[in-house]
Amino acid sequence: MAKTTNRTCLARLPGGELQVLGPKDLHKIDVMRSKPEHLVWLDITSPNADDLALLRDEFSVHPLALEDLEKRRQRAKLDTYAEQQMLVTYEVLEPTQKDHSYELGELHLFAGTGYIVSVRWEASPTIEEVGRRFRERPDAVARTPGTLLYTILDAAVDGYFPLLDRISERIEELEDQILAAKQTGAATLRPILDMKRELLELRRTLSPQRDVANALLRRDLPLVDDLSAPYFQDLYDHLIRVLDQLDLQRDLLASALEANLSVTSNNLNAVMKRLTAFTVILMVPTLIAGIYGMNFHFMPELSSQLGYPIALGVMAVSMVGAAVFFKRKDWF
Amino acid sequence: MAKTTNRTCLARLPGGELQVLGPKDLHKIDVMRSKPEHLVWLDITSPNADDLALLRDEFSVHPLALEDLEKRRQRAKLDTYAEQQMLVTYEVLEPTQKDHSYELGELHLFAGTGYIVSVRWEASPTIEEVGRRFRERPDAVARTPGTLLYTILDAAVDGYFPLLDRISERIEELEDQILAAKQTGAATLRPILDMKRELLELRRTLSPQRDVANALLRRDLPLVDDLSAPYFQDLYDHLIRVLDQLDLQRDLLASALEANLSVTSNNLNAVMKRLTAFTVILMVPTLIAGIYGMNFHFMPELSSQLGYPIALGVMAVSMVGAAVFFKRKDWF
Amino acid sequence: MAKTTNRTCLARLPGGELQVLGPKDLHKIDVMRSKPEHLVWLDITSPNADDLALLRDEFSVHPLALEDLEKRRQRAKLDTYAEQQMLVTYEVLEPTQKDHSYELGELHLFAGTGYIVSVRWEASPTIEEVGRRFRERPDAVARTPGTLLYTILDAAVDGYFPLLDRISERIEELEDQILAAKQTGAATLRPILDMKRELLELRRTLSPQRDVANALLRRDLPLVDDLSAPYFQDLYDHLIRVLDQLDLQRDLLASALEANLSVTSNNLNAVMKRLTAFTVILMVPTLIAGIYGMNFHFMPELSSQLGYPIALGVMAVSMVGAAVFFKRKDWF
Amino acid sequence: MAKTTNRTCLARLPGGELQVLGPKDLHKIDVMRSKPEHLVWLDITSPNADDLALLRDEFSVHPLALEDLEKRRQRAKLDTYAEQQMLVTYEVLEPTQKDHSYELGELHLFAGTGYIVSVRWEASPTIEEVGRRFRERPDAVARTPGTLLYTILDAAVDGYFPLLDRISERIEELEDQILAAKQTGAATLRPILDMKRELLELRRTLSPQRDVANALLRRDLPLVDDLSAPYFQDLYDHLIRVLDQLDLQRDLLASALEANLSVTSNNLNAVMKRLTAFTVILMVPTLIAGIYGMNFHFMPELSSQLGYPIALGVMAVSMVGAAVFFKRKDWF
Amino acid sequence: MAKTTNRTCLARLPGGELQVLGPKDLHKIDVMRSKPEHLVWLDITSPNADDLALLRDEFSVHPLALEDLEKRRQRAKLDTYAEQQMLVTYEVLEPTQKDHSYELGELHLFAGTGYIVSVRWEASPTIEEVGRRFRERPDAVARTPGTLLYTILDAAVDGYFPLLDRISERIEELEDQILAAKQTGAATLRPILDMKRELLELRRTLSPQRDVANALLRRDLPLVDDLSAPYFQDLYDHLIRVLDQLDLQRDLLASALEANLSVTSNNLNAVMKRLTAFTVILMVPTLIAGIYGMNFHFMPELSSQLGYPIALGVMAVSMVGAAVFFKRKDWF
Repeated sequence: MAKTTNRTCLARLPGGELQVLGPKDLHKIDVMRSKPEHLVWLDITSPNADDLALLRDEFSVHPLALEDLEKRRQRAKLDTYAEQQMLVTYEVLEPTQKDHSYELGELHLFAGTGYIVSVRWEASPTIEEVGRRFRERPDAVARTPGTLLYTILDAAVDGYFPLLDRISERIEELEDQILAAKQTGAATLRPILDMKRELLELRRTLSPQRDVANALLRRDLPLVDDLSAPYFQDLYDHLIRVLDQLDLQRDLLASALEANLSVTSNNLNAVMKRLTAFTVILMVPTLIAGIYGMNFHFMPELSSQLGYPIALGVMAVSMVGAAVFFKRKDWF
Repeated sequence: MAKTTNRTCLARLPGGELQVLGPKDLHKIDVMRSKPEHLVWLDITSPNADDLALLRDEFSVHPLALEDLEKRRQRAKLDTYAEQQMLVTYEVLEPTQKDHSYELGELHLFAGTGYIVSVRWEASPTIEEVGRRFRERPDAVARTPGTLLYTILDAAVDGYFPLLDRISERIEELEDQILAAKQTGAATLRPILDMKRELLELRRTLSPQRDVANALLRRDLPLVDDLSAPYFQDLYDHLIRVLDQLDLQRDLLASALEANLSVTSNNLNAVMKRLTAFTVILMVPTLIAGIYGMNFHFMPELSSQLGYPIALGVMAVSMVGAAVFFKRKDWF
Repeated sequence: MAKTTNRTCLARLPGGELQVLGPKDLHKIDVMRSKPEHLVWLDITSPNADDLALLRDEFSVHPLALEDLEKRRQRAKLDTYAEQQMLVTYEVLEPTQKDHSYELGELHLFAGTGYIVSVRWEASPTIEEVGRRFRERPDAVARTPGTLLYTILDAAVDGYFPLLDRISERIEELEDQILAAKQTGAATLRPILDMKRELLELRRTLSPQRDVANALLRRDLPLVDDLSAPYFQDLYDHLIRVLDQLDLQRDLLASALEANLSVTSNNLNAVMKRLTAFTVILMVPTLIAGIYGMNFHFMPELSSQLGYPIALGVMAVSMVGAAVFFKRKDWF
Repeated sequence: MAKTTNRTCLARLPGGELQVLGPKDLHKIDVMRSKPEHLVWLDITSPNADDLALLRDEFSVHPLALEDLEKRRQRAKLDTYAEQQMLVTYEVLEPTQKDHSYELGELHLFAGTGYIVSVRWEASPTIEEVGRRFRERPDAVARTPGTLLYTILDAAVDGYFPLLDRISERIEELEDQILAAKQTGAATLRPILDMKRELLELRRTLSPQRDVANALLRRDLPLVDDLSAPYFQDLYDHLIRVLDQLDLQRDLLASALEANLSVTSNNLNAVMKRLTAFTVILMVPTLIAGIYGMNFHFMPELSSQLGYPIALGVMAVSMVGAAVFFKRKDWF
Repeated sequence: MAKTTNRTCLARLPGGELQVLGPKDLHKIDVMRSKPEHLVWLDITSPNADDLALLRDEFSVHPLALEDLEKRRQRAKLDTYAEQQMLVTYEVLEPTQKDHSYELGELHLFAGTGYIVSVRWEASPTIEEVGRRFRERPDAVARTPGTLLYTILDAAVDGYFPLLDRISERIEELEDQILAAKQTGAATLRPILDMKRELLELRRTLSPQRDVANALLRRDLPLVDDLSAPYFQDLYDHLIRVLDQLDLQRDLLASALEANLSVTSNNLNAVMKRLTAFTVILMVPTLIAGIYGMNFHFMPELSSQLGYPIALGVMAVSMVGAAVFFKRKDWF
């Protein structure tokens, strides 16, 4: 396997033997990929002007597709040119476990008779993994561009499942935090809004990928023959599953948010109720004290020796009575 | 009926006679299922490597389908291979009545000329039931793989109706609890959120099953001939009914939740109103007491012998008056 | 017209003459319905085993359709068998005006060359009405199974319009009650939740009926010829209208509920505001009284003869002032 | 132009000349409309039994269409009979500017070879306007039933735009009122609920009109030839625009309502906050007054000559202090 | 390049040479555009009666399209006439950075064999830009009406991306303001409602543009040949991306609004809770003061020299105690 800065080229010969094409052998690509039963895979990382020229001249890549390579941030899509299929898809890059966030890597794939070109801008777990397996057992991985394309796409889709599992765990955590929370503030809402934004953006990335998988199945492409059709059907099924789970998570997040609002508003109100009940409970003895603070000349209780302790007793009793009354009514 | 650890094989001979194939007769399967009017049903529980090899070699099961058997947790689907249909579906396993929850069992079915293979991982009520009926009256159950497939799928779908009835009862219970509740807390919301999650997951499981039933009807499969088409239509109708009921339950649950939020918020507010009214009622006599507690030298009432009882009377009257006034205004 | 416990059989002869077939003439049905231009209508109430046998033997009703007759509670549907159409539909049974509720009656119809069989389990206003008109003027009602089928279905659909009018009135009543309500409690919410459940269930019953009407139009059935197609189009239009109205009612109910929540929460809050304003108004004179209740030796006002009346005056003025201030700020 | 109570009949002769057919000439209709290049337009207001007979006998109107004329309140629709198209549509009748409400007029149109029949029950702005233009410059308006039909439908749709402008203005008014409102009550909500009901009903009327316009384009009708197709496309575009605007208005109304709820609830709460702050502010000096109202024998401050003024000063300072503190915390 | 008040006409000759047609050369248009390999681009700003006549006579523009030019405010659309395609689309006009608002410019395009006519009413960034590039390197921009049309539409769509970026920034700003806000009032809600209205109107403008792009692809137009199809596919993809982002923004705005409501309601309630707790804290010492203000003759504490300081101490301790208690319970 040879590296010219950023290019890797592998060729599977008809017998199943694998040949690594070094920088000087690149002129052979053209010859090899036109021979029957040869399969050439060229992988380019962060293409520069040279690479774009190579793609244009050797692989007749369409100007629009080249423009897409320069602009990046494309929607996942399948563009059908005369002799070539061009796909854009996204894979999950090493997600940082700690803060539950993720990053997506863009992947452009060009498939034609006898070759696949993959272009990416980051260290791609998908390409590394498929490359490793292809180098070890080329025949088990792919004999045609169609099956190699499937293997790459399938590895990319499989990367979403652990991400979804982490999201699901994270939402359950949020749900628990939410039901336990006493107050709703920016601190509680910020992670929910962020998670919602993540789910929305993930859906926006994945939903066109499903359309691409469907287009691969429906359009009558030479790439997808009868033999490989079940594999692409499988790919489509996986994407549907990913999207189903995503929608489920979104629904659960929405429910959790609603529940949070009502629980915290309820908690606050319950505290208010209790505080106000306290107020009432304190006002009763205050009134009694006020009564015996009146300056009427003829208030027989005042001169009684037991007046004071009895008054205190009545106050205590009235407070306890009010508290018990409120407790019973569940107002306290 | 013979058991090799986990395999059961039944064969219906053309005359309608049923033959149980023991472990040593398994090599006959291949012969039998290719003969016209023979119907072989092989049922495997928790397939091991041997079983997978058998499926691959004797039934030419596609590598992707074998992979699905190993991975499990597939979405319900219908995969069409050259000579074989592969179905994944879910059945309700013995639901535990007590806590209204349920468990679903995964079922993989392979149907081809003259045979059905069913694979499952738990004690399956569906397979047991259809197996029992098939052993008793083979002809009444199925003469072709198509009708046997229908019988199994139909039994699986029928298992959802009691589950839905239990869910419906549970939601009515929740609704009653909710309208009676005075407060909304994690205790009230947790079962609602759990129920919602259950309904969402049940929908996610059933909705692809409907698509499978539809695909069986729409695609021109040899499995579904003119004679068995009404049966598959019936299956499809049942699944639509199940999903309709599910959606209805979900709508009712949502309404109940909304109603709960408003009722409890209303109850809380009503208590607050009452407590605050109490405060006002207590403040009036407190003010009066305050007035007669003033130290002005010239306050004629103070020296009157009736001053004190009259003051108390005025206090009592003012409290009652305020209470009556608030009651009339419906503030109390 | 002859009744064998629960069967009624009418036959329209080619000349337009109507013949009632008694229990002993039932063997003639087979002959009559096969003759051109004969139209036989057999109506069965609450079919027993005998009736099911009759349907199976004389009308070759499919086992699945017989099963449906035994199970009941089917979704409205159109099942197409080789020589026969089987329809399930629902009609409104005598609704009890008083409590605005309704009951639906299930209707199974079998249509084939020269005959219609109707099966129901209750006194059916639809069947009675069409039967009466058919007996009076057979030709004006129907000459073919298709038009008789239309007449029955049309009468069934027409029964929904008065029900919808009652629902509409009921929702307007609820809306008025709701906007007038001061509090939201189980008493207000229970009828709304019940109405919502009714609307959801009605929609669930009617929506497949629309699909049936559409299927009658779209599928190329011998039952629906060029001449009767406009009638079935009309039926479809009516069902669309019913469903449109239903959705409108549901939207209005939802708006009314939302409005209710906000109005009552608003009312409650407004009362709270007023009560709290009362508190503040009472606290001002209380403070003044407290000031003159202080025991300082040098408080010149205390010895003034006008001190007391002036203090009372200041209290009164402060209360009125606060009240006016709050009133102006719209806080009171 | 002749009027037989409620009929108006105009005929465009091949040369472009216009002839008004009086009551006695009605028998000529039959002759004229069958001649090539003749175009007859019969307009009937509030059809009576005679008119219905005329329609049935001279124009072979289908019994179902006649029934629709008697029943009225149909959904907008296009019914295709053998030789005739029957359309139901709705136009805006002179809307009363003052209370922003509107009334819709039902319009039934019958189109066949050489004629258009229009039936309505009120003074129709659409029919009057098109009639006036047709009488002035028949050729500029229509030479075929198709273009005359388009002209009538187009005039009817154009009548919705001023209505939508008024609704849009009304909603902006409501929005302004809503954001300015301090309280939400039946007075604020009633017009919003009414507006919502209006929008829902308008949508329910217009949405089938769009389907009719689409059906005119899609179905291969002799009425809509290549030459007039762009006109019907234009009609369809207008209806889409009307519906788009309607949905936009509905969304804005919903947002406005939500905003209103939150603003008024916020206002109420802010008042509560302020009132409660007042309470606290008043309680501080009350406590101080209470302290100096205690009857302890040894309270040095009491005998100080400056005690009283200092106490009053402390009270004032404490009140101002609390007010400032609350103001800073934005609690007041 | 010649300007007759408001017309600019550029012609690309077969050799690739560009010719500017002055007002006197306009009669040549007709000749040129019919010659093979000629491409004429006529651009008109704010068309007057003369321009409309020119369009009608020289370009056979359909009366309906002319009417659209006079009426303006059309929905984006593609009208197919016999020899001509007519498109209406909208571009973003120089958006004023300051207040985040934007203005859209209407663009009518007519495309036929050998020519494009563009009509607009404002200084159009799209037309200026494409015009500049076309004058500089005609061949790089377009050789056929189809590619020129694509170039114009693509430039128009590209103008939406910076607008969307600004909207996205603005919504993030709003989100931050919202989560930080303590109160919800017209001041907070007005910009949200305005932003929502903007997004709704933008969607209403863009959604038919996507339909136009799709129609260009799907309908079998001579304008869009195999060579230019990928370009129109690209245009369609861009519009889908714009709409996707728009929907995402709308979802985020809705979430932000909901979050705002709950945060501010929560803040208000938390303040209420704290204020009410203050009330309770002040009531405890008030009660104590009331007790020692009572006039009982036998109150031993009163004559104690330490009575007063101890009473003050108890008051202080009770206040601190209550505050600590409430703090612990998180009520304060």
